[in-house]
Amino acid sequence: MKKIYGGIYSKKPSVSTDAFIVDEAQKKAEQLLIPYYLWETLAHNYMLAVQKIVPKKVAKKILSKLLEYLVQADETGFNIDPSIGDVHENFEAKLTADIGSDAGWFHTARSRNDQITTDQKLLVKQFCFDIFTKLYTLSGTLGYKSKRYASVLMPGITHTRVAMPSSFGFWWQSYLDELLTVEELFVSVLAVIDKNPLGAGASYGVNWPIDPAKTQQWMGFDKPLVNGLAAIDDRGIHELYLLGLFVGLMTVLSRMMEDIVLFSMPEIGYFSFDESFTTGSSIMPQKINPDIAEKVRAKIGTVLGCLVNTCVSLKGTPHGMNRDSAETKTAFIDAAKTVSDTLGIVEEMVATLVPNEIAMKHALAPALATKLVDSIVQTYNIPFRQAHEAVGKALKASDKDIQKITPQLLAECIGQVWVHHVAVTAEFLSKVLDLDGLLSGFSYIGSPNPKYVVYITKKLLIKNKKLAHTMYVKQKGWNQAKLQLINDVKMYMKKEGA
Amino acid sequence: MKKIYGGIYSKKPSVSTDAFIVDEAQKKAEQLLIPYYLWETLAHNYMLAVQKIVPKKVAKKILSKLLEYLVQADETGFNIDPSIGDVHENFEAKLTADIGSDAGWFHTARSRNDQITTDQKLLVKQFCFDIFTKLYTLSGTLGYKSKRYASVLMPGITHTRVAMPSSFGFWWQSYLDELLTVEELFVSVLAVIDKNPLGAGASYGVNWPIDPAKTQQWMGFDKPLVNGLAAIDDRGIHELYLLGLFVGLMTVLSRMMEDIVLFSMPEIGYFSFDESFTTGSSIMPQKINPDIAEKVRAKIGTVLGCLVNTCVSLKGTPHGMNRDSAETKTAFIDAAKTVSDTLGIVEEMVATLVPNEIAMKHALAPALATKLVDSIVQTYNIPFRQAHEAVGKALKASDKDIQKITPQLLAECIGQVWVHHVAVTAEFLSKVLDLDGLLSGFSYIGSPNPKYVVYITKKLLIKNKKLAHTMYVKQKGWNQAKLQLINDVKMYMKKEGA
Amino acid sequence: MKKIYGGIYSKKPSVSTDAFIVDEAQKKAEQLLIPYYLWETLAHNYMLAVQKIVPKKVAKKILSKLLEYLVQADETGFNIDPSIGDVHENFEAKLTADIGSDAGWFHTARSRNDQITTDQKLLVKQFCFDIFTKLYTLSGTLGYKSKRYASVLMPGITHTRVAMPSSFGFWWQSYLDELLTVEELFVSVLAVIDKNPLGAGASYGVNWPIDPAKTQQWMGFDKPLVNGLAAIDDRGIHELYLLGLFVGLMTVLSRMMEDIVLFSMPEIGYFSFDESFTTGSSIMPQKINPDIAEKVRAKIGTVLGCLVNTCVSLKGTPHGMNRDSAETKTAFIDAAKTVSDTLGIVEEMVATLVPNEIAMKHALAPALATKLVDSIVQTYNIPFRQAHEAVGKALKASDKDIQKITPQLLAECIGQVWVHHVAVTAEFLSKVLDLDGLLSGFSYIGSPNPKYVVYITKKLLIKNKKLAHTMYVKQKGWNQAKLQLINDVKMYMKKEGA
Amino acid sequence: MKKIYGGIYSKKPSVSTDAFIVDEAQKKAEQLLIPYYLWETLAHNYMLAVQKIVPKKVAKKILSKLLEYLVQADETGFNIDPSIGDVHENFEAKLTADIGSDAGWFHTARSRNDQITTDQKLLVKQFCFDIFTKLYTLSGTLGYKSKRYASVLMPGITHTRVAMPSSFGFWWQSYLDELLTVEELFVSVLAVIDKNPLGAGASYGVNWPIDPAKTQQWMGFDKPLVNGLAAIDDRGIHELYLLGLFVGLMTVLSRMMEDIVLFSMPEIGYFSFDESFTTGSSIMPQKINPDIAEKVRAKIGTVLGCLVNTCVSLKGTPHGMNRDSAETKTAFIDAAKTVSDTLGIVEEMVATLVPNEIAMKHALAPALATKLVDSIVQTYNIPFRQAHEAVGKALKASDKDIQKITPQLLAECIGQVWVHHVAVTAEFLSKVLDLDGLLSGFSYIGSPNPKYVVYITKKLLIKNKKLAHTMYVKQKGWNQAKLQLINDVKMYMKKEGA
Repeated sequence: MKKIYGGIYSKKPSVSTDAFIVDEAQKKAEQLLIPYYLWETLAHNYMLAVQKIVPKKVAKKILSKLLEYLVQADETGFNIDPSIGDVHENFEAKLTADIGSDAGWFHTARSRNDQITTDQKLLVKQFCFDIFTKLYTLSGTLGYKSKRYASVLMPGITHTRVAMPSSFGFWWQSYLDELLTVEELFVSVLAVIDKNPLGAGASYGVNWPIDPAKTQQWMGFDKPLVNGLAAIDDRGIHELYLLGLFVGLMTVLSRMMEDIVLFSMPEIGYFSFDESFTTGSSIMPQKINPDIAEKVRAKIGTVLGCLVNTCVSLKGTPHGMNRDSAETKTAFIDAAKTVSDTLGIVEEMVATLVPNEIAMKHALAPALATKLVDSIVQTYNIPFRQAHEAVGKALKASDKDIQKITPQLLAECIGQVWVHHVAVTAEFLSKVLDLDGLLSGFSYIGSPNPKYVVYITKKLLIKNKKLAHTMYVKQKGWNQAKLQLINDVKMYMKKEGA
Repeated sequence: MKKIYGGIYSKKPSVSTDAFIVDEAQKKAEQLLIPYYLWETLAHNYMLAVQKIVPKKVAKKILSKLLEYLVQADETGFNIDPSIGDVHENFEAKLTADIGSDAGWFHTARSRNDQITTDQKLLVKQFCFDIFTKLYTLSGTLGYKSKRYASVLMPGITHTRVAMPSSFGFWWQSYLDELLTVEELFVSVLAVIDKNPLGAGASYGVNWPIDPAKTQQWMGFDKPLVNGLAAIDDRGIHELYLLGLFVGLMTVLSRMMEDIVLFSMPEIGYFSFDESFTTGSSIMPQKINPDIAEKVRAKIGTVLGCLVNTCVSLKGTPHGMNRDSAETKTAFIDAAKTVSDTLGIVEEMVATLVPNEIAMKHALAPALATKLVDSIVQTYNIPFRQAHEAVGKALKASDKDIQKITPQLLAECIGQVWVHHVAVTAEFLSKVLDLDGLLSGFSYIGSPNPKYVVYITKKLLIKNKKLAHTMYVKQKGWNQAKLQLINDVKMYMKKEGA
Repeated sequence: MKKIYGGIYSKKPSVSTDAFIVDEAQKKAEQLLIPYYLWETLAHNYMLAVQKIVPKKVAKKILSKLLEYLVQADETGFNIDPSIGDVHENFEAKLTADIGSDAGWFHTARSRNDQITTDQKLLVKQFCFDIFTKLYTLSGTLGYKSKRYASVLMPGITHTRVAMPSSFGFWWQSYLDELLTVEELFVSVLAVIDKNPLGAGASYGVNWPIDPAKTQQWMGFDKPLVNGLAAIDDRGIHELYLLGLFVGLMTVLSRMMEDIVLFSMPEIGYFSFDESFTTGSSIMPQKINPDIAEKVRAKIGTVLGCLVNTCVSLKGTPHGMNRDSAETKTAFIDAAKTVSDTLGIVEEMVATLVPNEIAMKHALAPALATKLVDSIVQTYNIPFRQAHEAVGKALKASDKDIQKITPQLLAECIGQVWVHHVAVTAEFLSKVLDLDGLLSGFSYIGSPNPKYVVYITKKLLIKNKKLAHTMYVKQKGWNQAKLQLINDVKMYMKKEGA
Repeated sequence: MKKIYGGIYSKKPSVSTDAFIVDEAQKKAEQLLIPYYLWETLAHNYMLAVQKIVPKKVAKKILSKLLEYLVQADETGFNIDPSIGDVHENFEAKLTADIGSDAGWFHTARSRNDQITTDQKLLVKQFCFDIFTKLYTLSGTLGYKSKRYASVLMPGITHTRVAMPSSFGFWWQSYLDELLTVEELFVSVLAVIDKNPLGAGASYGVNWPIDPAKTQQWMGFDKPLVNGLAAIDDRGIHELYLLGLFVGLMTVLSRMMEDIVLFSMPEIGYFSFDESFTTGSSIMPQKINPDIAEKVRAKIGTVLGCLVNTCVSLKGTPHGMNRDSAETKTAFIDAAKTVSDTLGIVEEMVATLVPNEIAMKHALAPALATKLVDSIVQTYNIPFRQAHEAVGKALKASDKDIQKITPQLLAECIGQVWVHHVAVTAEFLSKVLDLDGLLSGFSYIGSPNPKYVVYITKKLLIKNKKLAHTMYVKQKGWNQAKLQLINDVKMYMKKEGA
């Protein structure tokens, strides 16, 4: 296959060069790019026609073929041939085979540099829409669980030790809130980087009367080209900003999965989930292992690795396109696919998670120590620190078991830290240890009071919907741009006649 | 020193435990946190007073001391003593020394978990404001240079090889555009994460009628507490989102520095900068080394390392506060200080960068090959690919020197790729090689046409100002919140009488 | 302060340049380098004297001062002044102040490039010796525990679920074995990279009749200089190889700490450790948090961050010294200090770890399922997979509680998977569930049979000693080289007379 | 497909679980593992036969099929079906289809945990042998070039600025030396981690009289199983140690590639390489871009990303097998394949690299400044620092052009820094600037004196051969072990009769 840049060359790239440039990962990526390549190429060539850069007759031949390829790409697909080269080289070869030397007009006023940067950005947007949709679905599930279990007691944990009374709904809500932060950031970051790179040429513009405003509109980019060199150099850097979000998100999920692995241990048993998200052992018949949760927990590794890869690939390369930046394409695809797949399976799994209310209630006792301190402060007007000290001493004297503390012991311990004598009653103690209405004592939003948990979850779910709507409108406009372009091209073909 | 949690303990932490927990990096961090700790502590204790959680008399004692500490912290400073513990333990010890057992009320309805998370977030905001200011200044300098040198020819580079005609102003503008993207993201991300964590308590709220809306206002947070557990678990995750931006920014700077190291080589000499940003050699008297540019180029290493550290520290830890998250504080400080220092020295250095117009013009010839192709297409109506092939062949036959191409040779090469004969004139060739008005041929925004470069830079500088104004208003409101709080506390002290 | 490279310069570096080059981290590093700098400088200058490169009289003046500085450095210390510059610039300034223009001979035939590379390598070696010593001590403790608890039953865990019978000694032994791998690698890697860089000059040698073999001997390097450029370019790369080991080691420790956090939970309670390695809560009096274990668990973040930093700093820099490589010094120090401190506190903490034999025995039941399968295979000659299936079915029918399986049920389940009828007896089942002699049934080395655990641990402890001896001999030779050098210099001073 | 662990289960894993567990990357990895799986499985089952754990008749059926599969795997291949599961589940299904219920014996006394750990280790070894072979070949090429060009002058570079005289051979040698360090480390690290994991079972051994010493021998592992839990937990950790080497190696290559991109710029033109390792531009006909060098330069990103991934996946997981560790398999394969492919193409490319002797000689002048300093010291007995200062001043007064320095100017500059008058002659200066015999003045090994470069390169090439021999012997023994095993099994089949 003759190379499209062959004039100055005395020989072709070595076979190993071709194989190294379009390696397995690149080939897969080029394959994924095909629909975006065709969209961008149609937009560019239609613009060339409208701007009268390419002779009308030739333009029509090209556009007609591109419309054909678009349909074919959806239906039967194409296979990138790495020995020909990248997605553009493959289609330039195909077009040349199909229409002969007129295909020579097809890459006018464009470089593979702005072409691939544009195609990659379109693919990135598609991934963002997909990931957002999965985030939205997962958030919905978390919100449902949060409301449903707002009154189910659960020990709040810090340092993997029982800390304070909490609820199962509050636990779900915490992850909901963290995911909505990611959603908000997603919307914001995507808005900032949604720029049209087409028209950048090799990095320094092209010597033709092109109109990037048109291609921007036809590819549904929010923002125009402002500096061709920046447009090219942004490749990978914009992806880094998204990868920063992915890394945060996956870190949050790794923690949720640790919770699931840990608190579904039979010894702890706060909750369980459907065994269809576990696998067993080839040797130990009793095993029901939380493999999905474990694998998700590990997946931050893949995504962080991709961020590191992207950053390292670009580090210290001079301005303008360099081959190094091709690595940012494969790294982003790997990361985005991982995030997307992970969100899907996590949603499926957590939807099956059910509480073991008895186990959680049973585990709650140690969590009442702070309530005891607070009650002492409130009842006997002793400063907090001294009350804390006294309860600590009482626990030490009772095998660290709050239920073994007697009124006498507590009074004695208070006596050790406070000047005034205090008469502790059994009623006082039993009221502290009473679990009824435990959470409704919390008096403000942000606490696990079920009333507020439900109220806030409702608000968060509305926010989830609003963010989803914003993205939906954006995505719809984007899809619309493509349909409009195809329509316009068809009209042009008709209008201009044979 | 007795520990504030000593009641249940039979013995104190080992000396090595104290030293490991508050190690050198943590000590430095706690030191930096002092003013934010005092701000947050004043807000919390004033809220306790207003909510009547702490007896009025005690509250006034505490508030009066906190106001004193604030003044002292500004003037003479405090020194964190690691053997006492973290910033809170140090100040609780100090307050106890100053006012005795009433200090026991001071930590009521608060945990060190929400306290440190809040303090860290305030410090993070301060870093963001500092870094933004430096970004703004650097962008201003880049914009100035971009306008000034919009007409100075410069070879555009791709693959570290001369590619296309460009201008020095266009090169500056590309970095300006990339930095403005960072600024925009900064504003967006900061808006999303600007939440009040105070009131989260240990992670599950507190059993007191506190009012987080008040402390939110007094500390100038945009958004309220919505879930205490999320507020605590966000620690480090929110920092990750900012670190993602830092990593992008520093990668961009690493590339700018590579440009500076490379294109100021005497052999290339496109530009030079003041020798006060270089150092010499202890052995080689001729040496003037671009050390600053090199060290900045390397600094993405530090910042990426901090992002990795933050992510790894949190990965797979269960919900609720864990000690692991303390690492996110030191990692963020290290990264943010690096970014801030780097932006400062980069601005100083690039301000001195001056072009070598002759060298750049001289280097431009190879960049004209594409213009030759385009001119052939435009003049002789030959398809682009064939014209490209012909020029490639002509270059191959001319030692790859465009200036050696003769009309005959070119005609001959065209003949090899195109059916129709074409008569190439010497005028045609000399017009292509003419550098006058080279850039003004580019006809659209995004290209290096000086007219558009100046126009766009002006717009970008307006955007820079607008973003800076947004941040300025935000920062002013933040500072105002603190002053208002101090005033309100003083009023309260007066109003409530002795 | 005049710069040592000032001749060609019209002005001095800006204040900000000095501050950026010798920033806080670099200053701390230069401070640590002082003793190694003086050692290397003494070796170099003595070599200059012996090779008659520097006039004897001058050489003696310089050597006499260097001996003085060495003593002072040990006793009162020096303070690096960043405004003067790095460690060399500080000492050249000092020597000039002390002996005047003769100090001008002191840097003959040397560059700061080979000097700092050599000094850094000496410091790296010191860190390696320190870290190895701590590894050795920790391994000793693990070995002691392994032998002591070889017969204490413990449930073996996979997927955080009870898997198979094991012993507490076997658990300790696994970490011992993993650490010994690190020790072995340490010895091997250190042997490979122990090369003398002095004589490399700026990277390309010096025009003087120096003798690197002498300085190699006097600084105790195993291997000679072979290529000056490689010697300089190895800076940071050799550190990367060590950082690879650190990363492995710290990952292992992060897992050990997870075990400690998890299996010391009161709900699980397999073991406990001294409360002097925990901290409490400022708000919750019942809290005894495993802070040390958590912080150690997080510390792989720091070390991995340092490896990333080192790699990124060097990535894509051209051959020969560049300022970028200075970052490798601070990154290595940060990582090595972290590893060293971590190993120290881990050893202290695990030394206090004691088993809760009852809890572990009690938790063992589910671990017997595989034994039940194996016994069925052995007793009834049923293939393993079918027996596994039968036991699985029996567990499903018994609330997943092996102790609820009856002979009838088991026989029935076997009947579902196997053609021949089998009569299961109560004796058969009770023998399977018997914990006595459970581990002694394992018949080979590598299994938790206490006999083999003790046997292997003894062998591992011998290996630990042998490796330590190798390192001891190496370190002793290294220290000896320094003493010998000082002695030789003193002899030279005496012999050569006044 | 029924799962091999299905007894206890009420339902099968969800389709999404199967797809997530054996995702695309895992499927590819399992595919690669097939020959190693079969080797290990044959060894295990032969051991079961020899130890009489499995009835002879059954054993023979199984062994006969395994021998068949081995041949088939080489010839026609198998395709892993992810809906069945991993490599073992696929082959257990196949064997069951082939021989019926006797296949139930086939996994006796083994777990998928020790099985996959063993298979992965065998694959890792194969990659190590492949990579070593490529390192060896590349080192050979570097050595050849180093000797050939030992006398070809080349400016030595530091800080991307001309520093000192050097040779093209010296430059090649520096990379040769750095690669040999990697080779040595490779041999050392591989020796340490070459342990047999089979017999570890799920992590805690198996209740059968197995003999791991036998399988160790039959799979060619250097070292025996010593602790089953460590054997399992080493998975990924051992890979980390190798990845540390890969990261160092790829960082070195990224620097070599930067040299190649930079110093083959037409503006600099120190050397060039064959255009079959470049690609052109779709738009700019003059372009010959060093794409291979650029892509290799970026590839440290992939490898560092894999190291980060591996470390993060394992971080903080509890002892014993967890699903998280499966990620270490795919990450290692990705990294190792990248390293292997990279070394191959680098060798091909650098083999074509040829010097431009004239350009390098021409660029050498600035590199003579240090020689001038040294000559002043040697001729006029002026201290080095003062001579350095004087030459610096002379350069400043001569447009930084050493060739413009006159005897008068130099004398004058010396006069400014030294008390005694010095008469500089034109002969003195012209001798300094003479390039003849420039390098032969260097008097020691490690300097660019061609004599020593050739001498040392010869020694390094011998070392290269010796290391390769060590690896060859190791690899041969390993292959031998497999052949021997197959032979022994065939003998067993025959001997035991039908």
